Amino acid sequence: MQKRRDFLKYTGMAAGSFLISATGSGCGGNSSTTSGSKLELTFRPYDLQLKHVFTLAGNSRTTTPVVITQLSYDGFIGYGEASLPPYLEETQDSVMKFLASLDLEQFHDPFLLEEIMDYVFNVAPGNYAAKAAVDIALHDLVGKLVGQPLYRLWGLNPENTPDTSFTIGIDEEDVVRTKVKEAEEYNILKVKLGRENDREMISTVRSVTQVPLCVDVNQGWTDRLLALDMIYWLKEQGVVFVEQPMPKELLDDIAWLTQNSPLPVIADEAVQTREDVLPLYGVYSGINIKLMKCGGLKAAREMVTLANAMKMEIMVGCMTETSCAVSAASQLSPMARWGDLDGNLLISNDIFDGVKVIGGKVILPDRPGIGVNLEPGNQLFE
Amino acid sequence: MQKRRDFLKYTGMAAGSFLISATGSGCGGNSSTTSGSKLELTFRPYDLQLKHVFTLAGNSRTTTPVVITQLSYDGFIGYGEASLPPYLEETQDSVMKFLASLDLEQFHDPFLLEEIMDYVFNVAPGNYAAKAAVDIALHDLVGKLVGQPLYRLWGLNPENTPDTSFTIGIDEEDVVRTKVKEAEEYNILKVKLGRENDREMISTVRSVTQVPLCVDVNQGWTDRLLALDMIYWLKEQGVVFVEQPMPKELLDDIAWLTQNSPLPVIADEAVQTREDVLPLYGVYSGINIKLMKCGGLKAAREMVTLANAMKMEIMVGCMTETSCAVSAASQLSPMARWGDLDGNLLISNDIFDGVKVIGGKVILPDRPGIGVNLEPGNQLFE
Repeated sequence: MQKRRDFLKYTGMAAGSFLISATGSGCGGNSSTTSGSKLELTFRPYDLQLKHVFTLAGNSRTTTPVVITQLSYDGFIGYGEASLPPYLEETQDSVMKFLASLDLEQFHDPFLLEEIMDYVFNVAPGNYAAKAAVDIALHDLVGKLVGQPLYRLWGLNPENTPDTSFTIGIDEEDVVRTKVKEAEEYNILKVKLGRENDREMISTVRSVTQVPLCVDVNQGWTDRLLALDMIYWLKEQGVVFVEQPMPKELLDDIAWLTQNSPLPVIADEAVQTREDVLPLYGVYSGINIKLMKCGGLKAAREMVTLANAMKMEIMVGCMTETSCAVSAASQLSPMARWGDLDGNLLISNDIFDGVKVIGGKVILPDRPGIGVNLEPGNQLFE
Repeated sequence: MQKRRDFLKYTGMAAGSFLISATGSGCGGNSSTTSGSKLELTFRPYDLQLKHVFTLAGNSRTTTPVVITQLSYDGFIGYGEASLPPYLEETQDSVMKFLASLDLEQFHDPFLLEEIMDYVFNVAPGNYAAKAAVDIALHDLVGKLVGQPLYRLWGLNPENTPDTSFTIGIDEEDVVRTKVKEAEEYNILKVKLGRENDREMISTVRSVTQVPLCVDVNQGWTDRLLALDMIYWLKEQGVVFVEQPMPKELLDDIAWLTQNSPLPVIADEAVQTREDVLPLYGVYSGINIKLMKCGGLKAAREMVTLANAMKMEIMVGCMTETSCAVSAASQLSPMARWGDLDGNLLISNDIFDGVKVIGGKVILPDRPGIGVNLEPGNQLFE
């Protein structure tokens, strides 16, 4: 199988120095093997193959590197993931170096989640994707230990998940039309803007579909008057919100834009961690929370609480990721107004089965933890 | 038994109109009786007998009325409580009226905690103690359903609980000395100030003990210069923080006081609900979170997140309550720098067994939910 071969070629490379400890345990909540009461972290690099060339305001690519983590305790296994798109600082090497530096065996109880994550956050600054890879695996493990999906432990109604947007990258007209036609299942499309051809992009999409759109400018506009003019035009085209219209440093311009905009203005690049939320009061209408930016589910939930208190809208987003990290982010999504949880749908070699999109809506698995199983044939940590 | 008689005299009064539905279930996690999959709320008024006359800046009293709630589902029972000190608006009648207005049977799953509490919060404004009585019982129930103490579901280390302060009310010198001697187990005492005799109170306490003190002024000081002068003197007397020194309306004066104070200034009356936290940025050094003020554990946890983001200190407090509500608040206490969780220790007719204070420190019970059992002989809802 292609997937299995893709993985195996990395196994040799990563074995040894990056393998903190072998567990010998089974997969996905299989408690037939008991590894004792130690918290054991293992991890492997993996390269995601994108179905389409992915174009942002800044670059194009066909793969996304990730690192898959496994946290085992008492025969249960939690899975996590760090996704490492090239426009961010972290790499597979930096993530594996960070993970190898951790001593999680000092914790004898995975339920000490606050203390464990405080430790992980304080080992080194930055490294948020690496931290998320631990946080996700730990939440998954705790959910499996109590036999409950994470959304249930958080008191959330799985029926309240949002529709997910599906991303249409910047591309040739023909390609855009093809992508939009392929995306007919979705009730909202995200169109990447921020180049010269913004109006053409929207018109091309509109030539094929009339579903609501949102746009992600990725900081691509620099003049607030032109930006406001564009937003008014976008509203007429059935766009429902605008993500990161201008460079995040232009706080005053963005605050002015938000105040005058007929559409909600959502922060993405401007909001990475918990610490970024409070200073954005009055600057944006809402925030896009991504596990890889903030360091995982614990931080993300705290950002939801902060945004709610500030009466800001909440969007839950993702990177290009396997169903592991997307299923984790989806656990939060009943608290979000908008979901951008299509990262696993953009890849051809997913190794996890988890969250689904049915009729455009995020459907949470009724399984413990983050709700994922390894796809058959992928014995990641054997 | 005294306790049982105290309760029984209310049973007749409350039966009927206030009893939404009888359950026939046993107590405290006993799952021998199955009530089906309905969420059933029952409640009873109860009067707490205080060991000492309790004097605040404003009044004195010997009893505190409460309402005990019981939420049953599938043979499991969660307990809750509303405490109703007379200086707050709510009464046993208002609480029972509020609880009787609720239709919790519309929810078929207690794990829909966010949705259930949204419903409870939106039924009517105010009524925070009544809302807390539902919230506590629901958290207790969910903890029992998964068989885990709440602090574990929240990822907290039970060893991180704070010492609790023990409150010394305003009284005659002899009485104060007696109370302080009785409180020798505690590592920090809370002295109520806010009258003419503040320095005498502190000197009387200091004539008997050298443990650290904190003071609760209950808005009793009105001049910020005199207040600052007093705080400097209090620091010399080994006081470690000052609670609500001035009327909560005097925001500018309190902000000035906090800025100039050599001791942390903690908000109590000034911070009731989640909505009160953000506007206090820069006004106080910290907040005293009480379940009866904010409407329960969900709101309290969110206030912890907000205070952390604002770099404010966290204190978890209580009213005069049974071990039910105090054990609930204690679940939060590993996240707090200070605990004021002595409410159950001030009464002579507690009907619950739960959190303990040993060597002055809050000791969380290793039991599911909020960790309480009904004391033998108190079949509250038979």
